[in-house]
Amino acid sequence: VSTGPTPGPVPRATERPRPTDQADVRRHNAALVLGCVSEAGPLSRARVAAHTGLTRATVGTIVDELIAGGLVSEQGTRAPAGVGRPGTDLALRPDGAAGVGLEINVDGIVAAVVDLGGTVRHRVARSGDLRGRTAAAVLRSAARMVDDAVAAAYDLGLPVRGIGVAVPGLVDLGEQVLRLAPNLGWTDVAVAERLRSYAVTSWPCPVVLDNEANLAALGELWTGGHGSTDSFVLVNGDVGVGAGVVLEGRLHRGSRGFGGELGHLTVAPDGPECRCGARGCLEQVAGLDFILRQAGVRDAPRTGEDAVAPLLARLARGDERAVAAVRQAGESLGVGVAALVNLFDVDTVILGGVFAPLFPWLDEPLQAVVHRRVLSAAWAPLTVRPSRLGRDAAVIGAAYAPLRDVLADPLGADASVA
Amino acid sequence: VSTGPTPGPVPRATERPRPTDQADVRRHNAALVLGCVSEAGPLSRARVAAHTGLTRATVGTIVDELIAGGLVSEQGTRAPAGVGRPGTDLALRPDGAAGVGLEINVDGIVAAVVDLGGTVRHRVARSGDLRGRTAAAVLRSAARMVDDAVAAAYDLGLPVRGIGVAVPGLVDLGEQVLRLAPNLGWTDVAVAERLRSYAVTSWPCPVVLDNEANLAALGELWTGGHGSTDSFVLVNGDVGVGAGVVLEGRLHRGSRGFGGELGHLTVAPDGPECRCGARGCLEQVAGLDFILRQAGVRDAPRTGEDAVAPLLARLARGDERAVAAVRQAGESLGVGVAALVNLFDVDTVILGGVFAPLFPWLDEPLQAVVHRRVLSAAWAPLTVRPSRLGRDAAVIGAAYAPLRDVLADPLGADASVA
Repeated sequence: VSTGPTPGPVPRATERPRPTDQADVRRHNAALVLGCVSEAGPLSRARVAAHTGLTRATVGTIVDELIAGGLVSEQGTRAPAGVGRPGTDLALRPDGAAGVGLEINVDGIVAAVVDLGGTVRHRVARSGDLRGRTAAAVLRSAARMVDDAVAAAYDLGLPVRGIGVAVPGLVDLGEQVLRLAPNLGWTDVAVAERLRSYAVTSWPCPVVLDNEANLAALGELWTGGHGSTDSFVLVNGDVGVGAGVVLEGRLHRGSRGFGGELGHLTVAPDGPECRCGARGCLEQVAGLDFILRQAGVRDAPRTGEDAVAPLLARLARGDERAVAAVRQAGESLGVGVAALVNLFDVDTVILGGVFAPLFPWLDEPLQAVVHRRVLSAAWAPLTVRPSRLGRDAAVIGAAYAPLRDVLADPLGADASVA
Repeated sequence: VSTGPTPGPVPRATERPRPTDQADVRRHNAALVLGCVSEAGPLSRARVAAHTGLTRATVGTIVDELIAGGLVSEQGTRAPAGVGRPGTDLALRPDGAAGVGLEINVDGIVAAVVDLGGTVRHRVARSGDLRGRTAAAVLRSAARMVDDAVAAAYDLGLPVRGIGVAVPGLVDLGEQVLRLAPNLGWTDVAVAERLRSYAVTSWPCPVVLDNEANLAALGELWTGGHGSTDSFVLVNGDVGVGAGVVLEGRLHRGSRGFGGELGHLTVAPDGPECRCGARGCLEQVAGLDFILRQAGVRDAPRTGEDAVAPLLARLARGDERAVAAVRQAGESLGVGVAALVNLFDVDTVILGGVFAPLFPWLDEPLQAVVHRRVLSAAWAPLTVRPSRLGRDAAVIGAAYAPLRDVLADPLGADASVA
């Protein structure tokens, strides 16, 4: 037994809060009112006050500004509950703002316009293996599709608040550069800047680049219903495999935006070589190339929906080789999902991309591995389900990214642009 | 090319903020003032106002309450800058509050008293392999050590604000039950409740149970200096291997507190069987048992500092077998660290527990594997370093846990207990 005082560390208040000022409070309360109207509306001003805990005077001032900004409308008239003038209800104006989403993936390009109400108002998809093509050629086609999407939004009377771009690789968020997309073979591509330079029209809003799995997770978060904690991981499958990590309602990209690289988790230390240079990465034994090769699907163009269709046809008729291939991928994916759950303790894992249509065959082998490899499995049930947005999660999330800024700061500096 | 509108999801404001009320603002500002005095003090009231952005009147009111609560003291007198009465500086009162930490591990028990200034004022350690002993026997000894620590704090004039207990396993935070500690062989032990029942004295404060790696990470966070983002993972090594994940200054325990189970990451799918029931878990090829066995250290009691001492002696004289054993563990640990970085994108990994003294031998093989297996390695430099708190990170973090509540809410309900 040793005892006695020893010198210790000097504490540092690393978790120290920032000061709250009037501008913070105003932004906070405006987001609160818009969130309330968006979720529970149509509602009277009085009920918004009751829901939010704000005074009726504060709600009144904020609502006037939200109406002026085109984000909220008054609708109908109700007979007054007591004396006084008839009341009107407040509702979100779905066409008050829109986002344009663009997804550039190994197997094609998708562009979409999504309004503030979450409805996809325009969508164009071009399938085709992009692995042989230069960044310049691909980005020229993509810029044309964004031109069309911006024009379509204009025709629909939707003010475009931003363009979100999803790419399958490491994104330097500060520089807005795609550092590395191993499956496209691209390095250091300034995607946002080059898209703008190839555009025929001038885009009246910011262009923001992010990783596809992160944006797919944002799309899922927007569509809601993930339980009380809103903690989940979206696993996006294609030729590559990525993850978007949402903890307590917030997307975690990591210190430098390079998080969620599930596809490069080691699942077989002496396994096949990966395009990243390492061995035994998850995407080498669970990605689309592996599945098609194991299943013996050689007649498909090996990309996108076109590639998955013949595989799904074989699975549907019970082709043993196809079923075994997907089950084998499911077991590998189970090792990856077990790592996610052991490390992040999320209660929900959502399978997106090509994993969404393959879910019925992936589910059981994946869950069996997870049950064996997750330490807390007996106390912490895990829900694994396909993405409700199917293969469009990333492009919808990309369109949502600028709308998220509108919802978080509805009276902000950008609001006047709309 | 397919085009046209398709129905989309209905948005839900999952990231909606809560309303701000006066109590929130008061708590927020009190934490801000105490944090400022703690970090930058001694300071005059005027400089606290300038640092925090609060009015001098608000600072004055809060400071009076902090002085009354014993957390802040006035010291010295300065000549006034202009006219008026001489000023006094405000300083944190290190003895204004204290926390008691208790660590129960496979290799022994440690209890410590840490004051608000971060100084360890009392420390008692008992080494010994606990694997053969019942929870009742271990918790009886531990309760005696806490009795002594509470008495020591009383003798030192320190008001104990809480007792933090670190255990090597899955903790159900809500129920305050240790669900599973595979290396102790314990399941479903109500540690906090049983410690209290075995205590001779009555402890005048809450007892809070948490996982050792989480508390070690809190200890590291307290001691600061993790760069601008305060994102890091502490990897705690002993017979088991655990991780505490801190993202943007916040500890992430996961949805149910079961996160950070790095030791059960699969690194060799066909590897040796683990106590958890799975195969090839990291702690089977990087934990203390593995290292001692590979190094041929049979003369040690295989627990704690006593076990590491003969290993360190062999390493220091360049014993090839010992060096090879630690390097092999370093490579396996590299696979685990690569997974952490690929998934969380932290820029700092801190090695604690027995990994801290072994760091000089673990470092190079670990970094080589990380460099090969982290996709973003070329753009995102990673710092790996030993814990500054050495093997005491968990017990210091356990003592800090209740002090953290004091710092976050210095005028809160608990403040009157002190």
